[in-house]
Amino acid sequence: MTATPQRGFPEEEFASRCAAAQAAMARRGVDAMLFASEPEIRYFTGFMTPFWQSPTRPWFLVLPLMGQPIAIIPTIGVPLMSECYVGKVVRWASPAPEDDGISLLAGQIREAIGPSGTLGVMMGRETSLRAPLADVMALRAMLDGISWTDITGDIQSIRMVKSPREIEKIRHVCSLADDAFAAVPDWVQAGLPLDQLFREFKRDALQRGVDDVSYLVGSAGAGGYRDIIAPPNDRPLANGDILMLDTGCVWDGYFCDFDRNFAIGTPNETAKLAHSRLYDATEAALIALRPGITPQDLFVIMDQILRPNSTPGSGGDDVGRYGHGLGIQLTEPPSHTAWDETEVSAGMVLTIEPSVIYDDDRLMVAEENVLVTADGAELLTRRAPRDLPIIS
Amino acid sequence: MTATPQRGFPEEEFASRCAAAQAAMARRGVDAMLFASEPEIRYFTGFMTPFWQSPTRPWFLVLPLMGQPIAIIPTIGVPLMSECYVGKVVRWASPAPEDDGISLLAGQIREAIGPSGTLGVMMGRETSLRAPLADVMALRAMLDGISWTDITGDIQSIRMVKSPREIEKIRHVCSLADDAFAAVPDWVQAGLPLDQLFREFKRDALQRGVDDVSYLVGSAGAGGYRDIIAPPNDRPLANGDILMLDTGCVWDGYFCDFDRNFAIGTPNETAKLAHSRLYDATEAALIALRPGITPQDLFVIMDQILRPNSTPGSGGDDVGRYGHGLGIQLTEPPSHTAWDETEVSAGMVLTIEPSVIYDDDRLMVAEENVLVTADGAELLTRRAPRDLPIIS
Repeated sequence: MTATPQRGFPEEEFASRCAAAQAAMARRGVDAMLFASEPEIRYFTGFMTPFWQSPTRPWFLVLPLMGQPIAIIPTIGVPLMSECYVGKVVRWASPAPEDDGISLLAGQIREAIGPSGTLGVMMGRETSLRAPLADVMALRAMLDGISWTDITGDIQSIRMVKSPREIEKIRHVCSLADDAFAAVPDWVQAGLPLDQLFREFKRDALQRGVDDVSYLVGSAGAGGYRDIIAPPNDRPLANGDILMLDTGCVWDGYFCDFDRNFAIGTPNETAKLAHSRLYDATEAALIALRPGITPQDLFVIMDQILRPNSTPGSGGDDVGRYGHGLGIQLTEPPSHTAWDETEVSAGMVLTIEPSVIYDDDRLMVAEENVLVTADGAELLTRRAPRDLPIIS
Repeated sequence: MTATPQRGFPEEEFASRCAAAQAAMARRGVDAMLFASEPEIRYFTGFMTPFWQSPTRPWFLVLPLMGQPIAIIPTIGVPLMSECYVGKVVRWASPAPEDDGISLLAGQIREAIGPSGTLGVMMGRETSLRAPLADVMALRAMLDGISWTDITGDIQSIRMVKSPREIEKIRHVCSLADDAFAAVPDWVQAGLPLDQLFREFKRDALQRGVDDVSYLVGSAGAGGYRDIIAPPNDRPLANGDILMLDTGCVWDGYFCDFDRNFAIGTPNETAKLAHSRLYDATEAALIALRPGITPQDLFVIMDQILRPNSTPGSGGDDVGRYGHGLGIQLTEPPSHTAWDETEVSAGMVLTIEPSVIYDDDRLMVAEENVLVTADGAELLTRRAPRDLPIIS
């Protein structure tokens, strides 16, 4: 286990994140940025709460070209937001019968931009505005004279490269989940229903110190599994099953995201072969991974091992990609696909997640988490073995 | 503990939900409905997965005027969706470099509606479209000749009234969380840091059978607490603290949402008074609750007890309301506010959640979950006592 890092971030971490966004604004001719989603509001201010699970109230953040961000939020969030990296907290009693914060927000944007100018909004891949569409349209109408421009790429570029403090948190949660995975053969055996297994895995990871087992999926089936996103059923594990557990545990708001495969009793040859092929694909990606490479390169390197007879660049299997970024969210840009040409740089935290289909309709997925360093890559997870682990 | 209900729903449950939406469409002159959010896609098809935590891929559902819903989804979801209540599953390899499912979706909408007609989209209070704004705008442009209309009220009206099977699931998770709350005085004591307390509460609730402790917030402070949405800190509980825990545990996709207050050692008089006043406000609401009443009525009934000197209907305290609906989501419509005139009907599951401010800046919240019956209300939670419970 790694030493437990300090929770939270010092103020300079948020100042530096905002400065990076403001530099992008200056370069792009953007006068202010609007955020209405949990990850970005947290990233720029430190505002962290599970309360986002309630869809009732909208929350907004405006980042002006200079200075600290301005929060326009429901009164219920004021005590917490006041301790965050914000220059001003503008509140309203939400939920409101009409105009649930929208004209208040428009006023703050006007104050930051003036009668005309450009507002940056995330509108692209992997984003969504957490606000009613009618309110978004009302806001656009109120902001007559102000044009909207997409800042998805700017923000994703900034968030993709993790600070040392962010890396420390991800490293810690990876280590805790590694311990939980390592213990699985000690308590899992044939006869255990999958839903009980899930419950026990969550309890064990919590005991080891994760704040939440926010994401746990998995599957078990004779000779292999097919579905990798369904909730568990109550079928007891049986000899000959291949079991997969994939977890996104969270510590201080940062995710790990990796899985482990196990054979219950003697595995079939095809499953063993699939597991070693996934290992080899991961190994090839780990050797190649360094600054300057692209997710596309990683895809091709893995795809040649996983599907040696496929047309190069033809698109991977059902999962759609062989890994992705990781941090505040379970999955973040970039995507290891045939088309993602993002330049990989030091400080990025990525998953390497090859998958293969075998025996016609069985799927196997393996996943590791890695940090890109100045001259290569460093595993944040303890490498799964090449040979499929057996629980006997 | 209640007997564990059966997981999932029979097909007729989804057929009846879709029929209700289709009846609303016929009434309103809507030719098809589009859904792009987890709760609605799950409600109409049964598609349940924690994979929604990955923001990478958009998911869509089109409900035509007749027949089963059509899923337009990334390939990774096809095995699970194929077992759900859908007439057709249209897939694409996502994430895609351009056009991540949008023209495919437009094609399915055209097929359902024809060259011109009306598409129902949820655009109102408590909703958001889980898709990039640029894609939403591209879809609108592709659907030239088709007008969009807001169906928020129609869908919320349907979802607000729970079926017997939904009620059974909520009742079960309430009972499990009740057991977890009842055990708190057995293991919580002064000296225990709040973050360890949270971790242990989650482990205990999991052990009792909940699938997830999706939501847990709380607070502790000398003489009372102020913030009710922050994550826990590592401050040890001290004599004189008032502790509040508020949990949204989940069983088979359905939430409970209630809290409990405790005094560590001898409580201050003002905290004791606040607790009994919250009890009285809840009691008054429970006595009044029956079909035909409105959330506004409930607000006024509670507000008169909580803030006897305030102007009637002046808007409650910082929380913004005194309760809400409950089900697939931690919070659902309606809202017990000064303005919500929804007609309460049998089958609704509501929280009764009064809050008071005392000693200038202390907040206390109490919450129960109730089912509206033909002639009154039935508690789904074991009623908190009037006297603030003491952990000594």
